[in-house]
Amino acid sequence: MKHLLTMAGLTLNEIENILFDAERFSKGEVWKVKEQTFVANLFFEPSTRTRNSFEVAEKKLGLDVLNFSAESSSVQKGETLYDTVRTFESIGVSGVVIRHPENHFFQELVGKVNIPIINAGAGCGEHPTQCLLDLLTIKQEFQTFKDLTVAIIGDIRHSRVAHSNHDALTRFGANVIFSGPKEWQDETGLYVPIDEAIREADVVMMLRIQHERHEGQMGNTKEEYHQAYGLTIEREKMMKPHAIIMHPAPVNRGVEIASELVECERSRIFKQMQNGVFARMAALKRAFECKTVQTQSLSI
Amino acid sequence: MKHLLTMAGLTLNEIENILFDAERFSKGEVWKVKEQTFVANLFFEPSTRTRNSFEVAEKKLGLDVLNFSAESSSVQKGETLYDTVRTFESIGVSGVVIRHPENHFFQELVGKVNIPIINAGAGCGEHPTQCLLDLLTIKQEFQTFKDLTVAIIGDIRHSRVAHSNHDALTRFGANVIFSGPKEWQDETGLYVPIDEAIREADVVMMLRIQHERHEGQMGNTKEEYHQAYGLTIEREKMMKPHAIIMHPAPVNRGVEIASELVECERSRIFKQMQNGVFARMAALKRAFECKTVQTQSLSI
Amino acid sequence: MKHLLTMAGLTLNEIENILFDAERFSKGEVWKVKEQTFVANLFFEPSTRTRNSFEVAEKKLGLDVLNFSAESSSVQKGETLYDTVRTFESIGVSGVVIRHPENHFFQELVGKVNIPIINAGAGCGEHPTQCLLDLLTIKQEFQTFKDLTVAIIGDIRHSRVAHSNHDALTRFGANVIFSGPKEWQDETGLYVPIDEAIREADVVMMLRIQHERHEGQMGNTKEEYHQAYGLTIEREKMMKPHAIIMHPAPVNRGVEIASELVECERSRIFKQMQNGVFARMAALKRAFECKTVQTQSLSI
Repeated sequence: MKHLLTMAGLTLNEIENILFDAERFSKGEVWKVKEQTFVANLFFEPSTRTRNSFEVAEKKLGLDVLNFSAESSSVQKGETLYDTVRTFESIGVSGVVIRHPENHFFQELVGKVNIPIINAGAGCGEHPTQCLLDLLTIKQEFQTFKDLTVAIIGDIRHSRVAHSNHDALTRFGANVIFSGPKEWQDETGLYVPIDEAIREADVVMMLRIQHERHEGQMGNTKEEYHQAYGLTIEREKMMKPHAIIMHPAPVNRGVEIASELVECERSRIFKQMQNGVFARMAALKRAFECKTVQTQSLSI
Repeated sequence: MKHLLTMAGLTLNEIENILFDAERFSKGEVWKVKEQTFVANLFFEPSTRTRNSFEVAEKKLGLDVLNFSAESSSVQKGETLYDTVRTFESIGVSGVVIRHPENHFFQELVGKVNIPIINAGAGCGEHPTQCLLDLLTIKQEFQTFKDLTVAIIGDIRHSRVAHSNHDALTRFGANVIFSGPKEWQDETGLYVPIDEAIREADVVMMLRIQHERHEGQMGNTKEEYHQAYGLTIEREKMMKPHAIIMHPAPVNRGVEIASELVECERSRIFKQMQNGVFARMAALKRAFECKTVQTQSLSI
Repeated sequence: MKHLLTMAGLTLNEIENILFDAERFSKGEVWKVKEQTFVANLFFEPSTRTRNSFEVAEKKLGLDVLNFSAESSSVQKGETLYDTVRTFESIGVSGVVIRHPENHFFQELVGKVNIPIINAGAGCGEHPTQCLLDLLTIKQEFQTFKDLTVAIIGDIRHSRVAHSNHDALTRFGANVIFSGPKEWQDETGLYVPIDEAIREADVVMMLRIQHERHEGQMGNTKEEYHQAYGLTIEREKMMKPHAIIMHPAPVNRGVEIASELVECERSRIFKQMQNGVFARMAALKRAFECKTVQTQSLSI
């Protein structure tokens, strides 16, 4: 069962294989499932980018897609996540992509369901396909992760991106530094002042302020946040000549990053979205490649 | 026009034909529409299981699917159901699958629209494709309905499953007995104490408590209900050796049925969901087989 | 870039080409995209008819469809429309169909995004594909627009249909007259009393009362409105023998039009819906025909 749950659960070799496939997909490589195969996208939190990115990836692989969002469903009727997934398994779905507000939603599923689970974002925990697309974007730029300095800046504590990326980049030999407001720091890594982070980084990765997760708790205005912890026009000028800007999006323009920088020459923000489709195709291929045989036997 | 509205509207022979096709689909038989054909799923009540089961069935038949849910639609603008269905007919849809809160929603449509209607659950009335999948599951188990005792237990009055199944099973020569709280009984059939029902049954069919239909009116706690009218671990031991457990799902674990029994050896609950796709494929095939010709003439 | 934003932005020749293609699609002509191509329907207002009409049109052209509605999306997270569209562009979408509450939503997009935009209804402004389907319906009836009298009756001020149709019909040489309550008139054209409008018209085009746009501001009951400004059974008898009835739907039966007239012999209301698919196929073909090449280069 080729689940994709956390970056920590993948060996470096497995990650490299996924990145290799993703890179080939980005060059136009075609891989399709051989017979009619269903995948379900189960989104228990709203999402545009990730859900549609998965849907494009799925359809490019020739998968038949079922979309499910928690609002209009019998989850309202009190069903457990396990029963929901088993239901989709029973009606013939060969894999599920799940976004869920709980960090470890998959723990009640692993070992009990017979179809692969792809984590599409888990609470404040992990978001492995976002990490894979970030890795792909960095690798396309620098060919290696070894000895790169990656600065991750913003709301570290609530960011699933920060956690997944810190884990994977460190294992690949990159030097990850954090920066951001004290109240949003956690125990994960090394914190430095923002100007230092920006001067040293090969990759400046800004995080989104998750307004919806701490409404009203932010003790300063957007403009104050931007000046204190954002990538301002002035700070961009301190960056190394070859350094790039990344952001998982959606961007709060003028908060994490000056609006003028979103599509500047250094920015890889929309490139990341493009790569998201390729990384997800690779993750799905990995899950469904081995599934093909099992599905068939199920229907006999 | 091959509508599927109520079980009572089908002859035994028609039911047998649908079950025959469903059984073949369960064995891997393939049947596809010959040209691009659209079906619309019009859901005026939330549903995961049924809607996705239909969508899988439709896509397995090669249909192009439009999904419509009442929340995000111009039903808010006060349109009649008739006008909504005629709209879908006008834009080229060859059949509609409808779930609706009213028991007889289809009465304003039959004879006035020119495309087949498949009832996907009507208020507290009928839910014929649920009945068909139940029949298929029982038939796979016992080969016949004749002289089987089927105990339907729970909230009979509000259950569309109970009504459809009672009608069809009785006509096929099965002996249907009911059990459940007095306030949820109606005039349909014979009521017996739950322990007696469970001892005598070849099929123990538990119904879901529709919390959303009578919030707060249930005069006892979930645990009390479970002890009084649920399939407890103790009651399962009273069942005949060969008897099976069914439930239309979603299950309220620990209420209608002990959580441990949901996937026990006797349980056919997930098997029912699997069969749901095959029963719906058969019902859709029946509707679209004869439609194919008519659709073509419409576009000329 | 073949956007479709306003009728005024199309030359008469371009409109004729679209109508020519639409007419061919109505006769069964087939045109499909040559390779896998994605389109996204971005609906920032609820809609049944238009969204599903587009989806049928898109699938008939072989497009892969992404559906997005503002309710369940990260627009809640404060993203700009520009960033949303750029996101869809980045994930590989080759065109977007947008319905939006603002009259000029597309002004922040044109010249900045690299994929065609099709306006599926903009606030109280334009709704060009509705206009195109109206033109197609009129042309099928009278072969020409020259010297036809078209009466548009109802809530002119808030109607995107009225504005688009007035512009296009006038340019094609038709004589457009308006009628309706004084408080809903605007500066667009010539207003006449309703009985006069109905007697003189070759085409009686009734508009929908947009209850959702001016709840409670309507100073009279539905029956009073019907008598004063609706197409009553009596008024239908005053129409010219060959004159037809049109309505963009959904219809408020008994308000703008007597319920008995919705499907009378003169009515083209459901014909308009049928034509909507063909007009949208033509508009999409126009957008995607030239796109095919560009998309390909994007993925290299």
